[in-house]
Amino acid sequence: MKPSNIKLEHGSGGALSRELVDSVIFPFFRGSEYRELSDASPLTIDGDILITTDTYVVDPPFFPGGDIGELAVFGTCNDLAVSGAKPRFLTLGFVLEEGLPLSDLRRILQSIAKAVKEAGVKIVTGDTKVVPRGKGGGIFINTTGIGQRVAKAALSPSKIETGDALIVTGPVGSHGTAILAARESLSVGSELVSDCAFLFPLCEKMFRLKEKLRFLRDATRGGVAAILNEIVAHQSFSIWVREKDVPVEENVAATAEILGLNPLEIANEGVVIAVVAGAEAERAVSMLREHPAGREATIIGEVRETNPGKVVLLTPIGGRRILDFPRGLVLPRIC
Amino acid sequence: MKPSNIKLEHGSGGALSRELVDSVIFPFFRGSEYRELSDASPLTIDGDILITTDTYVVDPPFFPGGDIGELAVFGTCNDLAVSGAKPRFLTLGFVLEEGLPLSDLRRILQSIAKAVKEAGVKIVTGDTKVVPRGKGGGIFINTTGIGQRVAKAALSPSKIETGDALIVTGPVGSHGTAILAARESLSVGSELVSDCAFLFPLCEKMFRLKEKLRFLRDATRGGVAAILNEIVAHQSFSIWVREKDVPVEENVAATAEILGLNPLEIANEGVVIAVVAGAEAERAVSMLREHPAGREATIIGEVRETNPGKVVLLTPIGGRRILDFPRGLVLPRIC
Repeated sequence: MKPSNIKLEHGSGGALSRELVDSVIFPFFRGSEYRELSDASPLTIDGDILITTDTYVVDPPFFPGGDIGELAVFGTCNDLAVSGAKPRFLTLGFVLEEGLPLSDLRRILQSIAKAVKEAGVKIVTGDTKVVPRGKGGGIFINTTGIGQRVAKAALSPSKIETGDALIVTGPVGSHGTAILAARESLSVGSELVSDCAFLFPLCEKMFRLKEKLRFLRDATRGGVAAILNEIVAHQSFSIWVREKDVPVEENVAATAEILGLNPLEIANEGVVIAVVAGAEAERAVSMLREHPAGREATIIGEVRETNPGKVVLLTPIGGRRILDFPRGLVLPRIC
Repeated sequence: MKPSNIKLEHGSGGALSRELVDSVIFPFFRGSEYRELSDASPLTIDGDILITTDTYVVDPPFFPGGDIGELAVFGTCNDLAVSGAKPRFLTLGFVLEEGLPLSDLRRILQSIAKAVKEAGVKIVTGDTKVVPRGKGGGIFINTTGIGQRVAKAALSPSKIETGDALIVTGPVGSHGTAILAARESLSVGSELVSDCAFLFPLCEKMFRLKEKLRFLRDATRGGVAAILNEIVAHQSFSIWVREKDVPVEENVAATAEILGLNPLEIANEGVVIAVVAGAEAERAVSMLREHPAGREATIIGEVRETNPGKVVLLTPIGGRRILDFPRGLVLPRIC
């Protein structure tokens, strides 16, 4: 009888390891260049290469709006996209915990295969390890992504100038609150859904701005607050954010309030922060809104000279406060 | 006061995440192209590219002869080397368990930095995740390796011909028994030491054989038995192994006997299996023996026509038996 759960023997390198790869994993990537049993795979790519790596440990692995498989594909592709590269190849490294239902693994593989198709990337090689019960978190997935640079201008905080505009491509805080709600069985009336999405098409629109696009970043762990603080660190400018202009879904705002969280500090998986020349900001927003993932794109702030190295939040009642790096905020295993 | 153990906040994406990367991890890779806070890193490579990925979950993380850091660098570099590529770039993905002593992390980073130097590779990008206590195994490390093809001939089981010779580059079973001994506090008199080593220099010697080198593979999980069975699978030849010629350290043989294990099924981290044209076998062994990791290189068998698809073991007392894929052998977290 075939096992219905992951067993330690699946990680032994012997017969059951081979069977797991050949009859469970490989069928989802047939026609791709996926190879696990041979040691390394060739890849062909022209021009400038960019590389990124990320391990996904999200808990629970299935959540409204996505799952760890989709996240592992889109998350790494998005890191390439915001760096100006078209995602081309991915590697897949699994750490499976003994006892993981094989049906869960199949569902995740199915989701990976679907996401890979949407993103137009190839899985080139993989690895599967098994750890004993109690020494893992069900399933962890590492993806390393290789992309080809397509943006003419290199994007960097050092390109940012006073007068530039700050844009978010959609409502913030949806991924983190969806994960928390799924984990804690919270309910706020309507369902909280992760914004997990493939963002290269949205980034591609921004590349049309050429050197008027200064910087792009997806606002994942630590949310918008962490990214903005990374941007201003050691720079001679500040970023001013108008809190009332920041798009937040109503149920996300309600959940954040109940939990005492700031939506600007919550992880997103479908939101990009763009810094563009002030004169191009309206055009940038119009272009972003052509795409479903960007239909709520909004200018939320600007780059100024005062308070260099700081992110300043203009509150709805007219106050000002410093928006710092999130501190002591513990949302473990959010991605 | 600075924390002395990994805390959940180290994985939050906020201030403590930044501090972990900036003041603990980054100093070990200064001067390299390591970047974690920016999303993707450029890399420049000419010619044919090979890629491989592996996650290391070895328990315990420190063992006689090595640690998880060295293993994560050499293991992935070796996968490139046996595929005919010179290792050039590595990515580093950590999954840290809450409570991991920062001193352990520093010791592992030190070891990674040393191994990276020996292997002549660059760490190009990284990622660090933290999972709650009881949801991880102390530390897991994924490395993805990018190499440049240097072997003229592509290596593949399909190149193997009847009359070819089978070579192992050193004594088998040392890594797996060292890990088991460290885990179980076994003692067999002399210390069991892992054979963990960087094998590109050894492989490079074999590349001189050009098309007379048919196939190379490092005998890791599942040991020599798994690799030989992967080679013969679906092929029209068999591999015959003379058991008495297989080099095994005395203390490894003794430990394997106590534990009821076959040294041919135990993982190695410093042993390569080479299949070469019969007429070149002696020359190949001489070249291998020039290198410290190959000083016990030995011809242990040959490729025949009979029993196609099988590995046949010639026992010391003149018997024959089929050496199958390891089955039911459970040495979890061996690499």
